[in-house]
Amino acid sequence: MYWFKNLTRFTVPVKLKHRTASKLTPTLFSLQHVHQLAAAGDAVAPPASGLGPTKKPDKPRIVVLGSGWAGCRLMKGIDTSVYDVVCVSPRNHMVFTPLLASTCVGTLEFRSVAEPIARIQPAISREPGSFFFLANCKGLDAKNHEVHCQTTDGLQTLEPWDFKISYDKLVIASGAEASTFGIKGVKEHAIFLREVYHAQEIRRKLLLNLMLSDVPGVSDEEKRRLLHCVVVGGGPTGVEFSGELSDFIMKDVSQRYTHVKDYIQVTLIEANDILSSFDDRLRVYATNQLTKSGVRLVRGTVKDVQPRKIVLSDGTDVPYGLLVWSTGVGPSSFIRNMDLPKAPGGRMGVDDWLRVPSAPDVFAIGDCSGYLESTGKSTLPALAQVAEREGKYLAELLNKIGKEGGGYANSGSDMELGAPFVYKHLGSMATVGSYKALVDLRQSKEAKGVSIAGFTSWFIWRSAYLTRVVSWRNRFYVATNWLTTFVFGRDISRI
Amino acid sequence: MYWFKNLTRFTVPVKLKHRTASKLTPTLFSLQHVHQLAAAGDAVAPPASGLGPTKKPDKPRIVVLGSGWAGCRLMKGIDTSVYDVVCVSPRNHMVFTPLLASTCVGTLEFRSVAEPIARIQPAISREPGSFFFLANCKGLDAKNHEVHCQTTDGLQTLEPWDFKISYDKLVIASGAEASTFGIKGVKEHAIFLREVYHAQEIRRKLLLNLMLSDVPGVSDEEKRRLLHCVVVGGGPTGVEFSGELSDFIMKDVSQRYTHVKDYIQVTLIEANDILSSFDDRLRVYATNQLTKSGVRLVRGTVKDVQPRKIVLSDGTDVPYGLLVWSTGVGPSSFIRNMDLPKAPGGRMGVDDWLRVPSAPDVFAIGDCSGYLESTGKSTLPALAQVAEREGKYLAELLNKIGKEGGGYANSGSDMELGAPFVYKHLGSMATVGSYKALVDLRQSKEAKGVSIAGFTSWFIWRSAYLTRVVSWRNRFYVATNWLTTFVFGRDISRI
Repeated sequence: MYWFKNLTRFTVPVKLKHRTASKLTPTLFSLQHVHQLAAAGDAVAPPASGLGPTKKPDKPRIVVLGSGWAGCRLMKGIDTSVYDVVCVSPRNHMVFTPLLASTCVGTLEFRSVAEPIARIQPAISREPGSFFFLANCKGLDAKNHEVHCQTTDGLQTLEPWDFKISYDKLVIASGAEASTFGIKGVKEHAIFLREVYHAQEIRRKLLLNLMLSDVPGVSDEEKRRLLHCVVVGGGPTGVEFSGELSDFIMKDVSQRYTHVKDYIQVTLIEANDILSSFDDRLRVYATNQLTKSGVRLVRGTVKDVQPRKIVLSDGTDVPYGLLVWSTGVGPSSFIRNMDLPKAPGGRMGVDDWLRVPSAPDVFAIGDCSGYLESTGKSTLPALAQVAEREGKYLAELLNKIGKEGGGYANSGSDMELGAPFVYKHLGSMATVGSYKALVDLRQSKEAKGVSIAGFTSWFIWRSAYLTRVVSWRNRFYVATNWLTTFVFGRDISRI
Repeated sequence: MYWFKNLTRFTVPVKLKHRTASKLTPTLFSLQHVHQLAAAGDAVAPPASGLGPTKKPDKPRIVVLGSGWAGCRLMKGIDTSVYDVVCVSPRNHMVFTPLLASTCVGTLEFRSVAEPIARIQPAISREPGSFFFLANCKGLDAKNHEVHCQTTDGLQTLEPWDFKISYDKLVIASGAEASTFGIKGVKEHAIFLREVYHAQEIRRKLLLNLMLSDVPGVSDEEKRRLLHCVVVGGGPTGVEFSGELSDFIMKDVSQRYTHVKDYIQVTLIEANDILSSFDDRLRVYATNQLTKSGVRLVRGTVKDVQPRKIVLSDGTDVPYGLLVWSTGVGPSSFIRNMDLPKAPGGRMGVDDWLRVPSAPDVFAIGDCSGYLESTGKSTLPALAQVAEREGKYLAELLNKIGKEGGGYANSGSDMELGAPFVYKHLGSMATVGSYKALVDLRQSKEAKGVSIAGFTSWFIWRSAYLTRVVSWRNRFYVATNWLTTFVFGRDISRI
């Protein structure tokens, strides 16, 4: 290759003494280590033990189930001079959900929206008593202050490796499950948009369909089906994804897939109004933006999901090549199966201080928890905002308890906890693609308040979120991604 | 979230007129499109047709099989005012193989080493007669100037979608296969390092094992097995990967996985000397560098590969958690099964002009091709460098033929082709981790010549390769990745 020629200009003196191969023998052919290892060749995991109860002078142990907004914000706030932190989650990173939709079409890279827990709370990888375990929690033994866990690779359980962890304080922040309303075929054929691997699957499917539709001999109908992207659910996620998708189509597909660009179509199906929780003017604005950018808004209810089409309740067939499902969340099976009092709606019930009353030293935050009826408070919406505030509040509460000597199991229960958690809604936001967003700053649907739309709010929204990306590394990456996308367009390699 | 408070300072006038929902009805509930589509609901792909022979005034069609160094360099060089270009490959991007090893440990992002073919040759996505087909070539009908293809998603064949493409000129650049020497279990248990998804798999496995080894109850032997990374093959790829891996261990694992850092070990197994084609002094230097950075060099031959251990020919068991196989390449089954004269070693045989003599208008370049014995030339090594030069040469040759009116099938055979392809070896290179590299500028193993090692050559090597990354986007990305890795360390989220 040409640039090599330049190399010849270099005349770097080789300072190395010429040695004979024999001199290298010791290092080169050492089998010592290999023999050491041989014993382990067929080893299988021994019957699992675990982490036993802490004893002074050990620090008390906080066990956190989950690594979402609530759990990560909590871990970030925990004073690790007071507590050891053990996190149990099938995911070793926090997903920066508000930007996830952008990764599906390559506006952002996947890594830019994933923050390793070890960066959020370095203690888990450094402190001798703090850990991260890639595992699912299978059960809670509140009487003995133990959780039962099983290793997982995030998607499936690995060769069952069961272990127990004793906790001094337990924080359940295991989140919620995407709700399918019991509609047949959703889990099999639709893709949710909650994890990075979901976004990766959507991206791969989208690019695959773009390429397959270009294959000779594919009928126009089949082309149209392959390139029909259907989004079910008109909440912020569904709207954002639709917006990003139509951006991608208008800006990139039209250039890079000229042969098939006229066959691609985005349809957003919603049973009610899109962004129903938003101010009317913003909804009108969003509706216009989406339709202007070519998204078809269809009011309907899905009855059945088949491999190549969905059926609406009015009998209409909707063929699709890509089906994204974002109709909100409901309680996970883990929470449903837990034998503890629930909040209305089936979430884990908590009191004003986010405690699970019937289980001492157990707390629950984020999408998995809700106020018990006895509190007279209504369950908070499943928003990153809520989870983040609860995590922050509970971290401070636990730090207070720990500093006053109530950190260990079965202690600190009689302690004065101070002010209960109060949620102050700071507004809702959504993007609608093409650098447009909505910001609704009203305290509630009824209340009056500022609401803005357009580039200004996109900028506020993005930069606002950007400042929430936990590490500078990712802030830098996100900014870089936006820059390169802006300058070079989106990347379309299907890796 | 705090930053919201700032928002209240903004007082952006809402310019939108308040409209009633009814006004929106037309766009909101349009089912028109959905009905259009309904017909296609259960459509399956029709019996495949394909691209028939070209007729004037259509441009003659060059069909390229493969999207590696050879094929991509060729497509880049083709004059698209003379030819239409059709590329058939299971991969819609070129993998920048020299940097692939760096992506396994997060030094570089995956996307940085993948270049979409549409960027290398924009015509395939813009010209009406040029295409990229995500497919495998299943057979060649040289008599009728046709190739038979089948769609694939890169890993598996999709619902059989067969089609034919008529070519005026065919360039076989389908590359080679990783050689396993018929050793049992290699394909099942080892990971190669040739595609981006290989690097992704290695990365996921490595991070998974790091986390699993930290689980309570895992024995020391099992920890040691999980964290034993074995690399088979001491060529440039194996050496580079070992170097990157030990860098990762020394710089990142020691910080982020303090609990298990003492159990991790890299072993490089090679039957002969590592980097055998390199200058002795460089080999000594590489050996010292690797051992200094903790890589165990073991001379041995693998006899059997099992799920948790490999067995060497001397009977030694080598337990492993991660097994990477890079023992060079051999002819692919596609080439082996092709009924055309082969070069010694089983590659597709070509003459001095890279033509496949017995098949008019068929050419072969890159790792899949070799000189016929009749040429009296020996087969060239399977190097990116060779493939790249052949692609460039053939592009110029085909442009010449096309411009002189010989572009169509069965024409131009009597044409004066000019100078045959001559390969000039410009040197070999390898990195050994920690910003150290080797550059061997000798024409052959025997010849005298410059050879340098250390940071200087790393810098030359990297920047040299950087200038080969096809797009500015990726140059920018690679540079950014190096910067962030340098400043923030490698990313460890397992996505």
